[in-house]
Amino acid sequence: MRITLGQNNYGKSHVRMLRLSRQERHHEIKELTLDISFEGDFDQAHIVGDNSKILATDTIKNTVYVLAKQYPPEPIEEFAEHLIDHFLTYNPQVSRVKISSTEHPWNRIAIGGKPHSTSFLRGGNERRTAMVTATREQTRFTAGIEDLAVMKTTGSAFEEFLRDPYTTLKETKDRILMTNVRAEWQYAAEEIAYSPIWHGVRQALIETFADHDSRSVQHTLYAMGEAVLKSFESISEIRLAMPNKHYNLADLKPFGLENNNEIFVPTEEPHGMIEATLKKDA
Amino acid sequence: MRITLGQNNYGKSHVRMLRLSRQERHHEIKELTLDISFEGDFDQAHIVGDNSKILATDTIKNTVYVLAKQYPPEPIEEFAEHLIDHFLTYNPQVSRVKISSTEHPWNRIAIGGKPHSTSFLRGGNERRTAMVTATREQTRFTAGIEDLAVMKTTGSAFEEFLRDPYTTLKETKDRILMTNVRAEWQYAAEEIAYSPIWHGVRQALIETFADHDSRSVQHTLYAMGEAVLKSFESISEIRLAMPNKHYNLADLKPFGLENNNEIFVPTEEPHGMIEATLKKDA
Amino acid sequence: MRITLGQNNYGKSHVRMLRLSRQERHHEIKELTLDISFEGDFDQAHIVGDNSKILATDTIKNTVYVLAKQYPPEPIEEFAEHLIDHFLTYNPQVSRVKISSTEHPWNRIAIGGKPHSTSFLRGGNERRTAMVTATREQTRFTAGIEDLAVMKTTGSAFEEFLRDPYTTLKETKDRILMTNVRAEWQYAAEEIAYSPIWHGVRQALIETFADHDSRSVQHTLYAMGEAVLKSFESISEIRLAMPNKHYNLADLKPFGLENNNEIFVPTEEPHGMIEATLKKDA
Amino acid sequence: MRITLGQNNYGKSHVRMLRLSRQERHHEIKELTLDISFEGDFDQAHIVGDNSKILATDTIKNTVYVLAKQYPPEPIEEFAEHLIDHFLTYNPQVSRVKISSTEHPWNRIAIGGKPHSTSFLRGGNERRTAMVTATREQTRFTAGIEDLAVMKTTGSAFEEFLRDPYTTLKETKDRILMTNVRAEWQYAAEEIAYSPIWHGVRQALIETFADHDSRSVQHTLYAMGEAVLKSFESISEIRLAMPNKHYNLADLKPFGLENNNEIFVPTEEPHGMIEATLKKDA
Repeated sequence: MRITLGQNNYGKSHVRMLRLSRQERHHEIKELTLDISFEGDFDQAHIVGDNSKILATDTIKNTVYVLAKQYPPEPIEEFAEHLIDHFLTYNPQVSRVKISSTEHPWNRIAIGGKPHSTSFLRGGNERRTAMVTATREQTRFTAGIEDLAVMKTTGSAFEEFLRDPYTTLKETKDRILMTNVRAEWQYAAEEIAYSPIWHGVRQALIETFADHDSRSVQHTLYAMGEAVLKSFESISEIRLAMPNKHYNLADLKPFGLENNNEIFVPTEEPHGMIEATLKKDA
Repeated sequence: MRITLGQNNYGKSHVRMLRLSRQERHHEIKELTLDISFEGDFDQAHIVGDNSKILATDTIKNTVYVLAKQYPPEPIEEFAEHLIDHFLTYNPQVSRVKISSTEHPWNRIAIGGKPHSTSFLRGGNERRTAMVTATREQTRFTAGIEDLAVMKTTGSAFEEFLRDPYTTLKETKDRILMTNVRAEWQYAAEEIAYSPIWHGVRQALIETFADHDSRSVQHTLYAMGEAVLKSFESISEIRLAMPNKHYNLADLKPFGLENNNEIFVPTEEPHGMIEATLKKDA
Repeated sequence: MRITLGQNNYGKSHVRMLRLSRQERHHEIKELTLDISFEGDFDQAHIVGDNSKILATDTIKNTVYVLAKQYPPEPIEEFAEHLIDHFLTYNPQVSRVKISSTEHPWNRIAIGGKPHSTSFLRGGNERRTAMVTATREQTRFTAGIEDLAVMKTTGSAFEEFLRDPYTTLKETKDRILMTNVRAEWQYAAEEIAYSPIWHGVRQALIETFADHDSRSVQHTLYAMGEAVLKSFESISEIRLAMPNKHYNLADLKPFGLENNNEIFVPTEEPHGMIEATLKKDA
Repeated sequence: MRITLGQNNYGKSHVRMLRLSRQERHHEIKELTLDISFEGDFDQAHIVGDNSKILATDTIKNTVYVLAKQYPPEPIEEFAEHLIDHFLTYNPQVSRVKISSTEHPWNRIAIGGKPHSTSFLRGGNERRTAMVTATREQTRFTAGIEDLAVMKTTGSAFEEFLRDPYTTLKETKDRILMTNVRAEWQYAAEEIAYSPIWHGVRQALIETFADHDSRSVQHTLYAMGEAVLKSFESISEIRLAMPNKHYNLADLKPFGLENNNEIFVPTEEPHGMIEATLKKDA
C-alpha cells in the first residue's frame, strides 16, 4: 500500500481589514474579511516537514495590509486581483490562489436627511461576497450575496404537490414566504463594472421576489435567477440557495378562534432548502 | 440548618410571533420574540412538587397567540400590558409578571423608489426592546435598543489618560470609534407615545454620536445620554452600554510604509466596555 | 432640570489568556477569559472629557498578562484577587473592581488509557465561572457553572398543574427532561478550597439531577440546590437557572403508529425558564 | 439567449430527532440532526410552477420520524440508508438522495464511578458526521468528525520557512499548536462496522496529533491522515482540515519580564487554514 497526497491547500482565513479613504470633504470606508488560500508544490512540507516552500500564513496576512496601502479595496474583485498578482509573481511554488472576500456594509448616518461625512451605521447582516480564483493561465470571478433576508406576506401558494402516505401538509393558496437568499454568479465577460452590477443584481433579485406570483420556492427561485440572467449580459450563470424559513400558522382552534392568516409562529428549524443553478446556453 | 427558598420565577422564553395586519391597500407586519416570567406563590412546587399553582409555560405561550389575535402588537409596550393584565387577572397566585420583548425590524422593499405593499427586507441586527414589569400595584416600562452598530472615522481622541508602569498605549488625537450601543430608558410619565419616542431616542443617540467631539467613550456616552434626557421630557433615566470595539492601526513600519490612519485591523476581543446611567434630578 | 451621572463602570472584556506551567514531567494549562470592570471617581471623564483618572483599558489587559507571569491562575478566584489587590493598591480613584472569569476546560488526551503529559482535548461547552467583586472594605466571591447540559429519560413527570381556558398541554407521568444548568453560589466562609469545592458542587448537581424523582423542573431545581447547601458548609446561598429545553413527542398517529416515548423532536425555542435562589437561614 | 436549469436539489434541513431505546436495565439515546436533499426531475416545478413531482419537505421530515420508529438509528449510516431506500423506492422522479447527519454526543452520568442507566451529560462540541449519497445504481458513504478541538503544548516547531520582504514571523522551535480538526473519509469496502471504525479513526487522529514531532500543521496533518489510512484497511481516502488557531506569546518585554513560553493570548481570527486529502494508491 502506497499513500499519496491529493488536493491540498493552505492559507490565512478571517483576515479583517478596514480601509479608510480620506477625501477632501468626506471619508469613505470599506470593511472586509478575506480568506486566502494557496495550492502548489507543498508535498515535501506534508511528507517530511520541509518548510522551504511554505510562505507563512502570517506573511499572507501582512501582504493584505501592505497592498491595501497601495491599492483601493473598491471593488473587492480588483483588490483580490492585485493580491493574487502579487502572490503568483513572487511565489513560483504556488500554482493557484483563491481569495474569498466578504464585505460588511456600512451606510452613512443621516442627520436631517443629510448623509454625514464621517459617521456610519452598520448595514445589517446582508453581505456582498466575491471569490477570485486564479492560476497563471486563468482567472475566474464569482460574485455573490449572502443572508439577503426577505419576506412576502401574500402572492405565495403551495398546492397540488405530490402526496404519499406520510404527507400531512395542507395545500395553501396564501402563505408567508420568508427566505435568506444566497446567490453566486459567474461573469462571462471581462472588464466588468463589478460594483454597479452587484447592486443591479441585488435589486433584480429583490424586485422579482417581491412581485412574483409564487407557486413554490422553486418557482420563485427560478424567476429570480432568470431575471438576473436576462438583465445582465455579462453574467453567464447564477446559483441560488433559498431556505424556506417556515412561518407556521398559530393553531387557535382549541380556543374557538379562527386564524385568518394573521398570527404566525416563525421557526428556525427544520427548514426547507432549495438550490438551483441557471445558465445561459452557449 | 434550615434552607429557605428565596427569589424565584419561571416562565416561557423565546416565544416567537409574527402578526400580519391586512390593511386594504397594504400589509403591516410585526415580528417579536417574548420572554415572559412570573413571580408568585410557588414554594410548594419547589419544595414538595405540588404543581397546583403552576400555570404551564405551554399555556403562557398559547396565551400570547390568543391575545395577539385580539390586540394589536403595536406598540410592543401596550401588547405586553394586555398580556400582563390577563395573567394578573386570572392568576391570583402570580404577584409579578415581567415581559421582555424584542422586535425584529422589517422594512418595505422599494421598487423604483416606491415601497412595496406586501414585501419586506430584514432591517439588520439592531433591535427594539421593551421590558414591562408589573405587580397589581405598579407597572414599570423600560424601552431600549440593542446592537446599534455605529462608527465614526474622525472626531475621536484619547489623550492625557492615566499612565502606570504597565501602560503602553499611545495617545491619539484621531482614532476610529466603533461601538454597538445598548440603551435602556425609563419613562417618568404615563400615556407615552412609545413608538414615536423610541424612534426619536434612536435618532438622538445616533446624531449625538456622529457629531460629538469625543475625548473618550465615556465622554461620548455621556453626551448621548444627556441629549436623550434633554430632548424627551417623559424619560427620567437612561443607561448606556458601549463596548469599544477596537480598530487597531495595521503596523506597516516593518515594510517601510507609513500608515496615516488608513489601514485598520477590526477586532472582536478584547474590547473596552463602558457603562453608565444618567438621571434627571427630581 | 439637572442631569446627574449615576452608577457607572468601565473596563476590559474578553481578555483571553492561556497559562502554561511546565512541570518536570508534564505540562499544566489553564485557559481563561476575563471581564474586568472598575467603579470609581470618573465623573469628570464623562462630563468634560478629562481622562486624568482613567487607566486605559489596554493597561488593564496588560496587567492581566504581567500578573499571570507572577501568580498561578489556579484557582481562578485567587488569581482574580491578586489582580484586584493590584488595581486597588495603585489606583486610588477606583473604589470597586469586579472580575468575572470563565475557564475553558481542557482534559488530557488519553493514549492506551494513560493521560498524555503535554497534549489536551477540549472539554466541551460547560464552563467554570467565578466572579470576584471587591471594594477596599470587602471582597465577595461567587463561583459558578454555565451550560452544564444534562438529560434524563425517565423519572420526570408533569401532572396536576393549573389549567385555564388556554391550557392544551397534556399531563405526563414520563417525559424527557433536558436542561442547561446555570448555577452561581456564594461562599459564607473564608479560606475556601475553591477548586475541590467547585468539583464537589458540580457532582452534587449532576447526581441529584440524575436520581431525583422529578414532578417538575422547579421540584428538581430545588432538590439540586438543597443538595449543594446541605453538602457544603461553606456555601451560604445558591441560584440556579434551568431552561426546560423541550423534547416533544413526534406525532405518529397520522401514520397509524403509536409513539411509546421513543421518537422525540428536540427543540430550541420556545423553552421554559425556571430560576430560583436557595439560602441557608442565619 | 436561452436559459437552462442546471444542477438543482431541494429537501429538508435541520431535522432533529432523539431516539430513545428502552432496554430492560437501561436506556440508550441517539440525538441526530439530518439534512436531506433530492435531485431529480424537477424542471417543471422551477419553470412553470408545476408541483406534481414535488414531495413536500414536510413529508420528508415526517418520513424521518416514521422510519425512526421502524429502524434503529445506530449506526447513523445505516439509518440514512433506510431513509434513502424508502425515498428512491417510492419516488421515481427522484434520481439521487443525499443525507448528511450529525450526531450530538451524550455520555452517561457517572455516580460513584458507575454509569447511570437513564441520565446523560452532553459530550461537548465534537460531532460525528456521516454523509450518504445514493442513486439507484450506487451508494457512497463518507464518515467524519467535526470540531475535534486539540492542543499540544510542546513538540511543535515552525522553522526554516520561506521568507519574503513582508515576512516578520520569527522561527520557533517550540510553540503551542491548537486546532479544531475536521476529518472526512471514504470507505473502500462494503459491510463496514461503522461505529467501531469511527471510534478507531478518532483515536488514531488524537494519538497521532499528541505524539507527533511537528514541523508544521501540514506535517502533522499528513501524519494523522497517514495513521488512519495505515490502520484501517476499509478506508480509501481521508480529507483533513485543520485551522491553526494561534496562541500568541504575550509580549512582556515592555515590562522587563521574559515570557518563557508561559503566558499566551488565544485568538480566534485570523487563523491559518490547512487542508489536504490523502489517498491509497490503487
